Amino acid sequence: MKNITLEQARKVVDAAIAKSNELGVKMNIAVVDAGTNLVAFNKMDDAWLGSIDISQKKARTARYFNMDTGAIGQLSQPGGSLYNIEHSNGGLITFPGGVVIKGQDGTIIGAVGVSGSTVEDDHAVASAGASAV
Amino acid sequence: MKNITLEQARKVVDAAIAKSNELGVKMNIAVVDAGTNLVAFNKMDDAWLGSIDISQKKARTARYFNMDTGAIGQLSQPGGSLYNIEHSNGGLITFPGGVVIKGQDGTIIGAVGVSGSTVEDDHAVASAGASAV
Amino acid sequence: MKNITLEQARKVVDAAIAKSNELGVKMNIAVVDAGTNLVAFNKMDDAWLGSIDISQKKARTARYFNMDTGAIGQLSQPGGSLYNIEHSNGGLITFPGGVVIKGQDGTIIGAVGVSGSTVEDDHAVASAGASAV
Amino acid sequence: MKNITLEQARKVVDAAIAKSNELGVKMNIAVVDAGTNLVAFNKMDDAWLGSIDISQKKARTARYFNMDTGAIGQLSQPGGSLYNIEHSNGGLITFPGGVVIKGQDGTIIGAVGVSGSTVEDDHAVASAGASAV
Repeated sequence: MKNITLEQARKVVDAAIAKSNELGVKMNIAVVDAGTNLVAFNKMDDAWLGSIDISQKKARTARYFNMDTGAIGQLSQPGGSLYNIEHSNGGLITFPGGVVIKGQDGTIIGAVGVSGSTVEDDHAVASAGASAV
Repeated sequence: MKNITLEQARKVVDAAIAKSNELGVKMNIAVVDAGTNLVAFNKMDDAWLGSIDISQKKARTARYFNMDTGAIGQLSQPGGSLYNIEHSNGGLITFPGGVVIKGQDGTIIGAVGVSGSTVEDDHAVASAGASAV
Repeated sequence: MKNITLEQARKVVDAAIAKSNELGVKMNIAVVDAGTNLVAFNKMDDAWLGSIDISQKKARTARYFNMDTGAIGQLSQPGGSLYNIEHSNGGLITFPGGVVIKGQDGTIIGAVGVSGSTVEDDHAVASAGASAV
Repeated sequence: MKNITLEQARKVVDAAIAKSNELGVKMNIAVVDAGTNLVAFNKMDDAWLGSIDISQKKARTARYFNMDTGAIGQLSQPGGSLYNIEHSNGGLITFPGGVVIKGQDGTIIGAVGVSGSTVEDDHAVASAGASAV
């Protein structure tokens, strides 16, 4: 299993902060490794306190299922095939803002979770972060 | 109380892995006994990490109520009679993939939970596992 | 990060069961990967129910700190440098029975935790398991 | 309430990493704000996985009581006045490695927790981090 390095994780965080500043938003940004363990985290000044946990859960959720968190959320609605999957793994967050991070050969090496604004902004910032590797 | 043996639980796991290979999917497979305690677990290589917990919760959920997990999920929808039952017992998973295991005389001796693909695949693999006893 | 495969994890479990039978004890045996995620578990018939959780915590504890669990327990005693470290990581088990698993090149690829008898037996069975890789 | 900024927290992390490299150790470094909320975290490559949680608990523990974690650990021993205080607040870590961070006027603005080596090293690295503000 290939795994993200701290150097890579810090690039993800910095790219996410740059994108946040561009959008004028205050974000919490978490990066986990291939085993879902936390590697790097930054809370921008005045970002929502409740998003500290959400950003970490988004990062883990993305790596747990190797897909964007928003894709899971479309299946976990009432009547959907994965209804209430959020009760697993100590709590999932299944709305947008969690994105997997791939190495240069396409292998998944970790994931980034972002929380602090609209889910569209959260996803845009997470994607900008993931693209930095 | 009649209870599944480790020998039987391993047959369930192996039958589930065989079915997974036939379907070309990567699964997490958990077997619990009549008291909902874990007896055997296998994570196939590259199976989703988030499904380790889900497979165990599916197995326990099936035995908690002696029915397929998917049957509970139909009752736990908004407006349903068991709405949000997933909050009990440290977290239930109520979509398909958990199936009870019966002994030769029809007594329930445990349950198997499978997670790693679509809920249809999860259920098919769990059923193949349960049939091995 | 190199990671244990299911095939290797099953060899660890089988070697641990063989050693348990040799010693005449009933064990719970858990194998985690390099990221501390569960890969394989077996509960021998009539093994202690309370050891299901302990075996998993021992495996994770060994990998968390890349050492035998008993080594941590010597430092976590009253007056010791790591007193009450057991309160971290959702609960550690720091008496013997958790051992890291190394690949052929010496890299740590996971860990095995064993619980069900004396700590001496637990450690002997875990070591027999780890040696099977 | 005066509070640490992300810019300050990143200085703490970087100073802690510089000290770790000087000592030849691999650390997890967590910085919390005056409200005990996580502001920044870095896991150095190959640092212990179990220290991710411990570093955060050390940082929170230091700020919870506005003193070095090791000072609390001297009071929490068997027979001590704070025996088993570690059971509070979701789990404290009371051995050295957590240090408060003060602003230029002496106000406590947060805390840093370090874990990954001996408690002496952990404390030295945390102190180096706290001194960077």
